[in-house]
Amino acid sequence: MEDTIAAISTPPGTGGIGIIRISGEKSFKIASRIFKGAVEFENIKTHTINYGKIIDPSSHETLDEVLVSKMKRPASFTKEDVVEINCHGGIIVLRKILGLIVKEGARIAEPGEFTKRAFLNGRIDLSQAEAVIDLINSKTDAGSKAALNQLEGKLSKKLKEVREKLIELIAHIEVTVDYPEHDIEEITGDMVYESLKPIKSLIYNISETFENGRMIREGLNVVIVGRPNVGKSSLLNELSGKNKAIVTDIPGTTRDIIEEYINIKGIPIKLIDTAGIRETEDVVERIGVERAKKAVNESDLTIMMIDGEAGIISEDIEIFNEVRNKRNIVILNKIDISSNDKIKEIENYFKDYNLIKISIKTGSGIEKIEEELTGLFNKGSLRLNDEILLTNIRHKNMIDKCMVSIDNALSAYDGGMPLDMITIDIKDAAYYLGQITGESVNEQVLNEIFKRFCIGK
Amino acid sequence: MEDTIAAISTPPGTGGIGIIRISGEKSFKIASRIFKGAVEFENIKTHTINYGKIIDPSSHETLDEVLVSKMKRPASFTKEDVVEINCHGGIIVLRKILGLIVKEGARIAEPGEFTKRAFLNGRIDLSQAEAVIDLINSKTDAGSKAALNQLEGKLSKKLKEVREKLIELIAHIEVTVDYPEHDIEEITGDMVYESLKPIKSLIYNISETFENGRMIREGLNVVIVGRPNVGKSSLLNELSGKNKAIVTDIPGTTRDIIEEYINIKGIPIKLIDTAGIRETEDVVERIGVERAKKAVNESDLTIMMIDGEAGIISEDIEIFNEVRNKRNIVILNKIDISSNDKIKEIENYFKDYNLIKISIKTGSGIEKIEEELTGLFNKGSLRLNDEILLTNIRHKNMIDKCMVSIDNALSAYDGGMPLDMITIDIKDAAYYLGQITGESVNEQVLNEIFKRFCIGK
Repeated sequence: MEDTIAAISTPPGTGGIGIIRISGEKSFKIASRIFKGAVEFENIKTHTINYGKIIDPSSHETLDEVLVSKMKRPASFTKEDVVEINCHGGIIVLRKILGLIVKEGARIAEPGEFTKRAFLNGRIDLSQAEAVIDLINSKTDAGSKAALNQLEGKLSKKLKEVREKLIELIAHIEVTVDYPEHDIEEITGDMVYESLKPIKSLIYNISETFENGRMIREGLNVVIVGRPNVGKSSLLNELSGKNKAIVTDIPGTTRDIIEEYINIKGIPIKLIDTAGIRETEDVVERIGVERAKKAVNESDLTIMMIDGEAGIISEDIEIFNEVRNKRNIVILNKIDISSNDKIKEIENYFKDYNLIKISIKTGSGIEKIEEELTGLFNKGSLRLNDEILLTNIRHKNMIDKCMVSIDNALSAYDGGMPLDMITIDIKDAAYYLGQITGESVNEQVLNEIFKRFCIGK
Repeated sequence: MEDTIAAISTPPGTGGIGIIRISGEKSFKIASRIFKGAVEFENIKTHTINYGKIIDPSSHETLDEVLVSKMKRPASFTKEDVVEINCHGGIIVLRKILGLIVKEGARIAEPGEFTKRAFLNGRIDLSQAEAVIDLINSKTDAGSKAALNQLEGKLSKKLKEVREKLIELIAHIEVTVDYPEHDIEEITGDMVYESLKPIKSLIYNISETFENGRMIREGLNVVIVGRPNVGKSSLLNELSGKNKAIVTDIPGTTRDIIEEYINIKGIPIKLIDTAGIRETEDVVERIGVERAKKAVNESDLTIMMIDGEAGIISEDIEIFNEVRNKRNIVILNKIDISSNDKIKEIENYFKDYNLIKISIKTGSGIEKIEEELTGLFNKGSLRLNDEILLTNIRHKNMIDKCMVSIDNALSAYDGGMPLDMITIDIKDAAYYLGQITGESVNEQVLNEIFKRFCIGK
């Protein structure tokens, strides 16, 4: 931790501003060597922005005109001395300046290393550090809100309270067991049991939020399938036109398939139209089919569309066979021009499903699709504000392990085990919560966590 | 120009830091409404960095934890009041904050609009503004250095001096012609002629730098062609291994074809190995061939490789037919294991070319390729420091028009035209120089120039 790290902190690519961040003991010394402004770097006040040039001290070559920010420890992102160099952008210039900084004694930061230092130096706890990357990667409005709640420490606060209670309980048990001669109120098995019950229920409730949390973070993944002309693209347009698009046209993301993020009653839904896949088929048939299968596999739900006018033909059945093992909504489109015979035939084939009959042309029945989609969130409409939501699979695993440990403690009590045996399970429970907040986490887990980060964060 | 503009100034994509920049009269008012830190925004000192939160004043929703920089006019990039919001990054958060800023009264900036304001407000001249985007887009070390020289005003300074001289000359002529009664030294045609001669030669020299400037900016585009196993990739590796790579592995750029930027005696060379194209052929043959043809078309030079052991086969001839109308270097590889007959056959087929015989295996002859490549720069090795280099095609056009006008003035004198007729051409010459520095540029040209910029600059 003694060394000084540096990285390009802005996304790769061409933009108006590029930033190089340096953190560690030598940051200010390095900046003094390479920055020439109106005031010498050492005389610059902390938390100020300063215009000047980056000049290679050995070749006297000017690398860029920059704005340099100085942030003296501990009032910085990492709680170390931090320098941010705001350059003109352009990958060549950024790399040259980064190269110079490394030559002057810093080393290139690993992914997430700035945030890791913020955690190790105690500015934020582990779940807050993880929220940073979730916030950066969030794909939906609701997802970024959930990450920000976590960044503000709402999850940690709750879990720290619970962990504190568990540790108090352990202490109380240990004093009772080890020092029976002490003049302290002796704890009984019943008291431990009564203390654990509400904790278990709290942990259970937090665990239950994960399914919603995951969907909020990722958005509900919905794939529309059906044969050509059945109305897939029209449905996508209808649903995304009626419902405010959350994300459209993020530059730089490849659009292999036609997809829209929409927002139905607060639920972010990513709709994927496999018609987009079909379009590429004439060029590269194999790739198109592979992509369609992949999209279906990764979906939370498929919408199978049937042409009510034409009825079921063998192609429909082929398509349905690809998706029948997924959670499905089956939609009969063109109800306005479907004969009763065809409707019956379709109802019969899909008798195990709640067939939704619509006409995109007349607009009838669309709201039933929305109801069906929102119904998938068991709690119905989402209240996000201030609610604690588990969005991270690692947290979910630790919460579940904590719950098992508490269950074990409760069973041990039921089985008449002595108090000091029960503490082992309670210690485990506290340990697992500490893995989320970072109070009991090891180097290997930390490395795994920060590997997910981007460079420069 | 009264309105306040805002944009995301960091490149699109995922990174550690995202920056939103606001410039204009309402910047500080908007920041006061949405930023909550330890100190009220209006009481924040200029050129300081301040920790706080962005909160939507109508919904009270927190959008992100941020660092906010305040830069009071005129000491800012645009010479207007500027606020920079340094966010956690992540496209959703950035868009939400930008949306809020727009709601509070700013409008989304057009590409290059911040730099345009810097120009219109007189902080930089037009050629400096253009250097900003060249610096951002520069693909080579030498290119960024040339752009930085231009950004520092070296080109403008020289051109302004010349323009000044032309204007003095015009003034002197006009006084002579219009006010012969004035007690001023009368200017003669000979004097005008003698003044214009050195200016013409200076302008000519600047114009001549363009060919090198363009190659420095773009890099020399070299495509290696030849049939499989002839040694294309080995040559690429050999040349890029021996010569320091300028750019390798820029994340986020699509690598359709294998290419390396190398640096031979200061000349940036982009080497493209069509083997990379060939690899994709088995999947999408047509696309691969199209790409190879496109690469060849856009190249400054092709390197045609022949297998000296195998001699010329029909496939070689087919490939050569695709490139024979380009500037070519022909290389015979595997000279160490080639029979004299095969060598003669190849020499005979390529008798119009300076056939370079090499063996990548033994390393013999590689330096001859480097010599041939550098020989393409007619001036040989490049001296970049402080040299004025035209890198911009628009500047080149204006310089050439200026030269034509001066030529016209000289011919007019030779043809015995009166002085006041000659001034028309001299005025034109000054006008064209002013189009580079921005002293005589119109709105339409400006729009064309700033359209090339990225959003947020």
